[in-house]
Amino acid sequence: MTDTQNKFKEYLNKLAQYEQVIALLQWDLKTAAPENGTASKIEALSFFSTEYFRLMTAEEFGSLLKALSAPEEFDSLNDAMKITVTRYFRDYQKSKNIPEDFFTEYVNASAHSEQAWEAAKRASDYSIFLPHLQKMIDMTKQKIAFTDPGKEIYDVLLDTYEEGMDSATIDRLFEEVKKELVPLLQKIKSAPEPDSSIFNAHYDIDSQKHLQDFLLSYIGFSHKSGNTAESEHPFTLSLGLGDSRVTNHYSLNDPISAIFSAIHEGGHAIFEQNINPSFEKTAAASVNLLGLHESQSRFYENILGRNIHFWEPIYEKLGEFLPKFKEISLEDFCREINHVKCSFIRTEADELTYPFHIILRYEIEKAIFREGVTADKLPELWNQKMEEMLGIVPSNDAEGILQDMHWSDGSFGYFPTYLLGTIYDGMFLEQIEKELGSLDSILAEGRISQVTKWLNENIHQYGSLYTSKEVIQRVCSREISAEPIIRYFKEKYSKIYNL
Amino acid sequence: MTDTQNKFKEYLNKLAQYEQVIALLQWDLKTAAPENGTASKIEALSFFSTEYFRLMTAEEFGSLLKALSAPEEFDSLNDAMKITVTRYFRDYQKSKNIPEDFFTEYVNASAHSEQAWEAAKRASDYSIFLPHLQKMIDMTKQKIAFTDPGKEIYDVLLDTYEEGMDSATIDRLFEEVKKELVPLLQKIKSAPEPDSSIFNAHYDIDSQKHLQDFLLSYIGFSHKSGNTAESEHPFTLSLGLGDSRVTNHYSLNDPISAIFSAIHEGGHAIFEQNINPSFEKTAAASVNLLGLHESQSRFYENILGRNIHFWEPIYEKLGEFLPKFKEISLEDFCREINHVKCSFIRTEADELTYPFHIILRYEIEKAIFREGVTADKLPELWNQKMEEMLGIVPSNDAEGILQDMHWSDGSFGYFPTYLLGTIYDGMFLEQIEKELGSLDSILAEGRISQVTKWLNENIHQYGSLYTSKEVIQRVCSREISAEPIIRYFKEKYSKIYNL
Repeated sequence: MTDTQNKFKEYLNKLAQYEQVIALLQWDLKTAAPENGTASKIEALSFFSTEYFRLMTAEEFGSLLKALSAPEEFDSLNDAMKITVTRYFRDYQKSKNIPEDFFTEYVNASAHSEQAWEAAKRASDYSIFLPHLQKMIDMTKQKIAFTDPGKEIYDVLLDTYEEGMDSATIDRLFEEVKKELVPLLQKIKSAPEPDSSIFNAHYDIDSQKHLQDFLLSYIGFSHKSGNTAESEHPFTLSLGLGDSRVTNHYSLNDPISAIFSAIHEGGHAIFEQNINPSFEKTAAASVNLLGLHESQSRFYENILGRNIHFWEPIYEKLGEFLPKFKEISLEDFCREINHVKCSFIRTEADELTYPFHIILRYEIEKAIFREGVTADKLPELWNQKMEEMLGIVPSNDAEGILQDMHWSDGSFGYFPTYLLGTIYDGMFLEQIEKELGSLDSILAEGRISQVTKWLNENIHQYGSLYTSKEVIQRVCSREISAEPIIRYFKEKYSKIYNL
Repeated sequence: MTDTQNKFKEYLNKLAQYEQVIALLQWDLKTAAPENGTASKIEALSFFSTEYFRLMTAEEFGSLLKALSAPEEFDSLNDAMKITVTRYFRDYQKSKNIPEDFFTEYVNASAHSEQAWEAAKRASDYSIFLPHLQKMIDMTKQKIAFTDPGKEIYDVLLDTYEEGMDSATIDRLFEEVKKELVPLLQKIKSAPEPDSSIFNAHYDIDSQKHLQDFLLSYIGFSHKSGNTAESEHPFTLSLGLGDSRVTNHYSLNDPISAIFSAIHEGGHAIFEQNINPSFEKTAAASVNLLGLHESQSRFYENILGRNIHFWEPIYEKLGEFLPKFKEISLEDFCREINHVKCSFIRTEADELTYPFHIILRYEIEKAIFREGVTADKLPELWNQKMEEMLGIVPSNDAEGILQDMHWSDGSFGYFPTYLLGTIYDGMFLEQIEKELGSLDSILAEGRISQVTKWLNENIHQYGSLYTSKEVIQRVCSREISAEPIIRYFKEKYSKIYNL
């Protein structure tokens, strides 16, 4: 290693220490910190985040990155280090282009906007949020004019959350999904609904947690490289390699929601737990490809977890942990976990109506950044699209445009990654069946570890070394297409609903 | 505030951020970090501890402390700031006197010694630990020659863990305890033992945790200013004001040990939770008076928790959480929790034999630092004292001299604080009864919150503003004496054992 490379490695090591305590403070704030201890945690979080930002924008770091970008250094780096230098140098240059005044104002505006959104949602009053949202839209445009002058704004935003992705590709994919799923949904809506009342009972929370531990182990989550905790909203957080943690939220009346949140977050964590350990402290170990990440959580939750054969080898266990399930047949259980119902809230939507929630948001984001639609027009647009796609109209903005926090802190371009993940899943499923045979058989025979192994080898180990498009091309040997997931939806739901 | 005072406050604020993440990393390592995530936590802990040490020994800090020590600045400081300047300046000057080479060697030797102790304990082979222990003894002597030249070494060590305490005082107190408790113990040993087998059962771990939450609330622990977790050994840790956490260790067969660990750690936490909030980020908020701290945990555990009247108002609850207790009478339960039995392991000793475990260690520490007894003679000395005081001889060194880790990292002078705490408790109990009336009645009537309030007002709120000797003088208006705790032991155990 050259002297510069050694210095860079030392610098990365320092960054990793800050990343770890920042993640740990976030983890603690959401899972453990008592009410009177949150203020000091937030203070520490802000202190160390500022220090980290200083390190990421320090002249010293810039000089190292510049030196390592020169061919004589760059060519001798391994792949993970190449990605690291490229990505960090890009980010360094971008943030150097943002005037300091503007940056401070943006951070402030974002904090105020989040607070306004919370208040607006609580009061179900969009007018509280409106000026803040408009400001975030305007400042986002300005920010990108600084960081990526001359580039198409919405494509830059998309690229932030899913590197290498663009709206031309997404247009093609989402249009196809919409075209094919609307008629399918129409048919399902006229079919009889299952009886959910058979699940009415109290389900002990401790037992739900023990069931979760069992399910996580079953799907391949390593309790040696992660753990679990309780939080208001389920999430996954990595505190470096070898430590990927998941949280869940439990309800005494509804164990099904917690079961599928556990499998979903477990999928995210399994990805993180299986990244090549030699990537430690490089950018390749931090998976900022949100679509690819979501494809893994959704693969476990939906493609595997909502398949009746997944439960065949372990359904008895459910009854052992939660005795009420002894009275419920596997068929009734699987009917319920695939219960299609047009509803207002994205995070509670079933597998089939979920894509519409995303397409709606994607179309609105395009309207904002392409057509210049202003914030005051958005609730109307929201409700109109809701009616068009799902045939229902929110009775208030809390269950409409105010439901998600993403736009409040300027995370425009984030939503599409959720549906991209599902579309990737169709491709992965097709490829897995080509290589390993019928998924139904694999699951029915309790050979789920073969699926996890396949995902480890083909996807997880590479972290963010490749973009999602590259991963698809490498793994499936063809361009990304929505066709496989559409076929999956049609086959699965035609069978369930006897269409 | 003067300019220097402002700068100092800013500096303290920075220190507080490091203290918080160092504590959080320790908390996480012991309660949550998965096996494969510990290495990176230890790395971060070492990184931020080094940074913290740099801040504490930086010239800039020294200059501020020097400037604030000048009368024109010092006199205008409030009490908490005075303590902070005095204590930090003293520590600053001490560490400045340690040559850097020596310090590095000491840290290294300490780490190796800890590892050697672990290996030695596992193998029950003192010879593995012997050279390391001798080195720690020698280096401790050298260290104190640097930091406190000309002072009596063992008194400096005692002062480290209990400021203002000295061996003359401890000699007087411990001699009295020994003289009076030996004959009491002799009598008890010839009395009939209670039947412990009635407790044989399986006690659900989740239910033990719920019982713990109830007990902690009952004694005055605030769940808003703290929380609970599981760890190998129970401990209390503060992450700043408003956040004092306790851990516990559970056994399926023995709920009693976890119950009293919970009350013990709860006592530590209640102290921390009730320190004057205006002390935040000053040295007064960090209670380094280990004897005083221990007096609070032991007051809750022993003086309150092992009193039959403590349980009267809540004994039914025990049966609600752990149904086996419905079959056990309050009298049998209280007989068991006050079961006196000479045994080898300090941490498992009952209330009455515990003092002997400490006196033994104190006498050995004096032999090391006063009489120059070398490490090779210590196992023999240990066993001889064990036989003399408790009439039993360890069959191996793991249950003898190797049982505690304290000496392995050079924490000589720490042990006496455990018994000092108990002696203080006798004084506090006497004073409480003087001011509030009979403790038995207070407990029987479920008025325990009056006791907690008394402790809050008289002890907790002051943090470490006063030394333990000063606290005793302020609260009890007399010098520290072992007489009250001896009287308590005699009265309590004469009654229980019908002597």
